[in-house]
Parts: sequence; C-alpha cells; structure tokens
Amino acid sequence: MRSRQDRPKVVIVGAGFGGVSAARALRRAPVDVLVIDRNNYHGFWPFLYQVATGILETQEVAYPIRSLLCRHKNVDFRMAEVRGIDLAGREVQTDRGSYSYDYLILAGGSTTNFFGNDNLASHAHGLKDIDDADRLRNHILHRFEAAAAEPDDTRRKALMSFVIVGGGPTGVELAGQLALLAQRTLPREFPSLDLTLTRVTLVNAGSSILESFPDALQKHARRRLDRLGVELRLNESVESVDNDVVRFSGGGSTAAGTVVWAAGVRAGDLTATLGARLGSGGRICVEPALNLASHSEVFVVGDMAFLDGHNGTAPYPMVAQVAIQQGRRAAQNIRALVRGRRPRAFRYFDKGQMAIVGPRSAIVDAFGVRLRGLPGWLAWLALHVAYLRGLRNRLVVMLDWIAVLLSPTRGTGIITRPAPLRQDGG
Amino acid sequence: MRSRQDRPKVVIVGAGFGGVSAARALRRAPVDVLVIDRNNYHGFWPFLYQVATGILETQEVAYPIRSLLCRHKNVDFRMAEVRGIDLAGREVQTDRGSYSYDYLILAGGSTTNFFGNDNLASHAHGLKDIDDADRLRNHILHRFEAAAAEPDDTRRKALMSFVIVGGGPTGVELAGQLALLAQRTLPREFPSLDLTLTRVTLVNAGSSILESFPDALQKHARRRLDRLGVELRLNESVESVDNDVVRFSGGGSTAAGTVVWAAGVRAGDLTATLGARLGSGGRICVEPALNLASHSEVFVVGDMAFLDGHNGTAPYPMVAQVAIQQGRRAAQNIRALVRGRRPRAFRYFDKGQMAIVGPRSAIVDAFGVRLRGLPGWLAWLALHVAYLRGLRNRLVVMLDWIAVLLSPTRGTGIITRPAPLRQDGG
Repeated sequence: MRSRQDRPKVVIVGAGFGGVSAARALRRAPVDVLVIDRNNYHGFWPFLYQVATGILETQEVAYPIRSLLCRHKNVDFRMAEVRGIDLAGREVQTDRGSYSYDYLILAGGSTTNFFGNDNLASHAHGLKDIDDADRLRNHILHRFEAAAAEPDDTRRKALMSFVIVGGGPTGVELAGQLALLAQRTLPREFPSLDLTLTRVTLVNAGSSILESFPDALQKHARRRLDRLGVELRLNESVESVDNDVVRFSGGGSTAAGTVVWAAGVRAGDLTATLGARLGSGGRICVEPALNLASHSEVFVVGDMAFLDGHNGTAPYPMVAQVAIQQGRRAAQNIRALVRGRRPRAFRYFDKGQMAIVGPRSAIVDAFGVRLRGLPGWLAWLALHVAYLRGLRNRLVVMLDWIAVLLSPTRGTGIITRPAPLRQDGG
Repeated sequence: MRSRQDRPKVVIVGAGFGGVSAARALRRAPVDVLVIDRNNYHGFWPFLYQVATGILETQEVAYPIRSLLCRHKNVDFRMAEVRGIDLAGREVQTDRGSYSYDYLILAGGSTTNFFGNDNLASHAHGLKDIDDADRLRNHILHRFEAAAAEPDDTRRKALMSFVIVGGGPTGVELAGQLALLAQRTLPREFPSLDLTLTRVTLVNAGSSILESFPDALQKHARRRLDRLGVELRLNESVESVDNDVVRFSGGGSTAAGTVVWAAGVRAGDLTATLGARLGSGGRICVEPALNLASHSEVFVVGDMAFLDGHNGTAPYPMVAQVAIQQGRRAAQNIRALVRGRRPRAFRYFDKGQMAIVGPRSAIVDAFGVRLRGLPGWLAWLALHVAYLRGLRNRLVVMLDWIAVLLSPTRGTGIITRPAPLRQDGG
C-alpha cells in the first residue's frame, strides 16, 4: 500500500460480506483502507452445511482475504483481534496494536445466539463459521465410527440420532443433507452397520419451517423433508442436552448423539461496548445513512446494524444480501463525505431468497418468480457459484457437486479432530 | 462384512502404505480382514511438504480408509487406538475393545525421531502426518502475518527466518518450496512487507544433502537450492530452540521464528511393548518371511520392521516402496499358511528414488536412468499422481499444480488454527 499522509484513513473491521463489499467499493477512492479481521479468510457461509456434511472441503468455502484484496493498491489487511474502539480518539484497538481512522466501517458480523442458555452453548453445535462446520463434520463422522464399534443397540441408535434446532434455510438444508448422507453415502462405507437406524429430527419454535417463503414453497419443502425421512417437531424448542439426552420445551426427551443449534444469530460482542443504542439481536441502531447519530464518521453494516426498513417496514434481516448492499452504501457515503457531499440513506434491493430442500431440489422466491425442484436447484447452483470467490474454488466446488451427482456414494471425508469426550457418548 | 465363523481372522494394525497394500492383497483370500487405525484416512505422505507450504489442501493427500477398502467384501475397518497386543492370547487391545486374530500384520508406521531431545520435540515442527503439515502451514502463515504487523526490524527478520533440519528429500523439498513461497507467492499478498528479508536455512548432520542419490544429482540439487537462496549448513545439527533462538551444535546461533525437524523417524511406540528384539530406529527384528521368530503368525511390515537386505546387504530403508512390497509379501505369506504352504522370504524390488529440487525441477535415479530438471519433474509428477488414491484427489491435485504453474502468485491458504503463543514470538 502506497499511503499518503494527507489521504483520509478508512478502517474496516471485519472481512465478511459487508466488509469486503465496502473495501471493493473504496478501491479507487482517494483514501487509504485498512481491513482488519481475526481470520485471514473471507468465508462463504451459505455453504457451511455442505462442509458439515462432507460434500465440500473447508477450503472451498473460504478465500484468503489478501488474495481477494491485493489487486486494490489502496487497500491493506491486518490479521488482528479487535479489543475495543475509542470513538472519541478515533482509534481501533487490537492485539496487534492500535490503528487510527478518519472513517470507520464496523462489519464484524454475527455469532450463534444461544439466548443465554449455557448448557446449549456448551453441548450443541453452532453452524456459523468454518471452525463450527469443521467441528460438526468431525463430530458426525466420529459418531458413525463409534456406532460401528458399539455392541449395545440403544447406545448405537443414540449415536446415530441427530437433532437440529431451527427451521430456517440452514436447519432445513442440514437436516435434508444428513438424511441423504445416511441413506446414500454411508451404507457403502459402513457395510456392517444398519444405517436405517439413523434418525434426523428438525425442531422449530414456529408452526412452520422456512417461514419467510410463500406457503406453496413451504409445503413443497415439507413434502421433500418428509420423503427424506426427516421428523419435524413444530412449536417446540430444545431446553437442554446432557449425556446425549435432549430435553424438549414441551417436556419430552430423546437420546441423540448430536445436537445442532441453527435457531438464531446475534451481533458480535463488540456492539455492546460502544455505548450506542442497541436493537434486537444486539445490533447497533444506525441512522438511515448507516452511520451513528453521535459519530457521523462511524458506519455500521450487515449483521451488526439495526435499521428499520424503508418507509417504516420491518427491520432489515441479518442476511448476506443486506450486508453486501450496506457495505457498498457505507463506502459510497464515505466517498461522498470525503468530497464534501452529503451521505445518502440506504435503500435495499431485495433479490429474493432460496433454499435447498432435497437432492437436486431447491425452492426459489425471487423477482416475483417462484421455482421449485430441479429448476430451483439449478438457479441455486448458478447463483452460488457466481458469488463464490476465485476460479480455483469455483472449479473445485463444481467438481465436487458433479461427483455427488454422478456418484452419491462418494466418501464423506477424513476426521482431523480428536473424538468428543466419552462423557458425551463418543 | 459377511464373516464366517470358520474363516481365519486377520487383523492389520495401521492403514498406511504397508497396511493398505496388505489388505488389498488379501481381498480374495478365504479370510476375514479387520483393519485398525487411529485415523479414518490413508495418508499420502510424500506430499506433506506441499500441504505445509500451501500448494495442496490437507484433504488432497488423505483418503478415507472406508472408501478405499469398501469394495473388498471380506475387509472391514475399525477406527481405534491400539493400546497393546497380547501375543500369547492372540488379541489386539484398543480403546474400542479387543479384537482376536489368527494372523496379525503390524503396519503401524513411524513417528518423528527427536532422539530424546525434549526441547526440540516441543519447539520444532515435525512433518510426519497431516496434523504436522496443517500445523506447520498455519504456523508459517501466522509468522508472515505477525511480520506484517511488526514494527521492530530485528524481530521482523526473525519472524521471517526458517531453519529446516535434515538434508533428505523432505528437508530439501520443504526448504526449496519455502524460498519459492517468499519470492513468488507472498510479495503480491503482502505489498507492505519486504519479503527479501526471508531467510531459509537447511541444516544437515552429514557433509552432503540427499546422500542416497548419485554425486552428480546431489550437485545439481545443491545448485538449485543455491539459486533459490537457501543457505546450507553442513556437518551441523540443531541443539535447542528457545524464544525463537536456534542454537547449532557447532556453537553458533540464529534467530528464527520457525524450526522444522525432518532429520529422522523411528518406529511407533507399539514396537517396544512386544518383548521382541529391536533393531535401529526402534524397529522390530523380523525373520526373512517378515514374521516373528517366536510367533510365526505375527507379521511386521514397513517402518515397524527391521530386516537386513537380501544377501546381507544394508537393512531395508524406511520408505514407502519397502512398506508397500512388504505388506503384499506378508499377505501372500498368510495366504500360503492358510493353505498349509510355507511362507517365502521377502525380496525387495528397488524402483529407485526421486526428489523435487526447485520449480519445475526434480532429480530421479531409477532403473539405471538418471533424470534432472524438467524431465525429472515430469517423471515425479506422473508417478505421484499415479500413486494417489481416488479420481477426485487426482483431479484436484493436478488442478492445483496447474494453478501453481500458470500463476505462481496463487494464494497460500487460510489460517485455521490459533496463533502460536506470544512467548514463541508470534
């Protein structure tokens, strides 16, 4: 980075969808940009459930930030953990030192929301980053290996039982893929294990899954999950997990060796330290132009920002598209301020939503078009490959998907982490 | 696995080159085979240095054992840690229970040999399995990230200094690739870091590197390393590492943030527990037919076996080719014993050796032919892809190599492990 003393300094905290989108939108602006992230990669989170179930490898959903940004001469990167922000002194404090800024973009994203339930936080798996996905895949494979060696029928069944909490796209996609794994992939690898004992239960607090989709598509998704043998428990949640026993809020319980919590996210802890007003999910309430009322040089985007929709509609959801568009708007507003112009209010362009609901089947609701089955799946595929970063990742991801299509019995991957503790039933 | 009570049971401990070769050679024999390994994958170790330097991903050099063996109906797999072997009771004890056998093949491989130096064991990186390679890659990337944030010149230079101990193929290949990484790949990703400060030192106890190769090829390798800027320290070893200061046996010292120990291996700890006579490297002395003198039903192959060469030549080296051929011989001898025939002595067919010594350059000494430069490199490539398991891995490995050829500035990969402790200089 060729920095000049007189150029305004922009610090971007976080290199997720929002942060990277902002950095790119600033690439030709007369500013010096420093991106800070605790990881050195940009993660493509919509694929996490595929990493967890062994279809994709960890590296295929992550892209080194330096490779992503190195074409932009005014953008530098620092791998560091943000400890705090001195709004008055205009300084970001990290474990690698402090960095001063003229403009700040907070794009630190979100983390799994266990709603204060410590028991779940320590016994259920989140599915929010690469570490989660890698840990969950290792756990699932360990469970089947343990089942293969388990002489006791009851314990073997428990090891092969999975409870997934959360009826949004992540929960639905993971439940469907787990059922497929047990039905198609594993029987060949575990010839002496009866895989029909596998049970996948999807728990949802609301009365229907994929609530943000139109009714007809919801019903289609339910039929597909039903066909895959996924058990639905609606209007219910999980209270606790102990020794592989899952207790439901309705009073029932079941033995399950794996519990995944995909029932909510909240903004990262940094938001609570700024003294700003917080909205739902621990998000920072921002002005329509995405900056703070008290500090107009500080912008907040993506899962860290709370902003009511245009014309008083519902607050913007914590999804990738909002983060990408907000990152771009924050960058454009900084360009405007540098030129002495006024920042503009954020306007969201809703590109719709989609979710995988079965083998070669997805539901799509976008631009007034509703797709399901194979056409939906092809649309999902095209869009997600387009959004992936890097030619290598695109090629390998497509290669792996083709492999799954041609040979559903493809191996599930290697175990790289030690087994869970015995107390957990491993 | 359809097992029959009357069929002899063969247990194979270890799914490396020796164990997998034995299992395959038993696939149509009238026996039931159980392969036991602490991991669920078969590793292709000659590629480890490429994983450590970010050319290949972890999963490309490992293949799930179940996928590898599931076509063989009489072979089953158990992921378990072997705790001990009851030779008298013919039983293998593991953390998942005990397994009785009629015939046993010990193919547990080897581990890094620090020759009892605890300081090195805890401060130097081994490069013997996937965990080592992944740890080393993370460490190297962390060091460059730390260097990018380090204001002090002396400390920055130390973070970018690498000492590799061991002048065999692994040490030579790693040293060359590290130099290339700093010269070609990283400058684009770290625009604000002066990468010419990077120092790679290769330390060797003997007076020449790659000692098992003919003189002319050794000289060629030295010239290539020289051109890459790798510093050679011959007739020397490393005594200790403390706070990033490396002390050499000759009395000198240097500051280096990374020390890799590729100077020796020894048989796994299991060999010492059997009461059998041990040869060099902690290996079990076996009869010419690869079984124990005291227990003719127990075979030992690969890095766990010590056997003098045919006609009293030097003992067989601890290399993949010996393990593969010994695994096959042990399997054939078990087939013979089952049929009431006599086992035969092991005869080694030396297929030669090869090593990468620079970009698009390798030395090959095989079948009386000596290659170097590009022809050697192409031979290396063809042979190694042929030995890789699985179409997917072959395709992705070739894709990654092509990417490196076409674009030497390709990214180095993501960091998936936390930084080393500050005391270590991170």
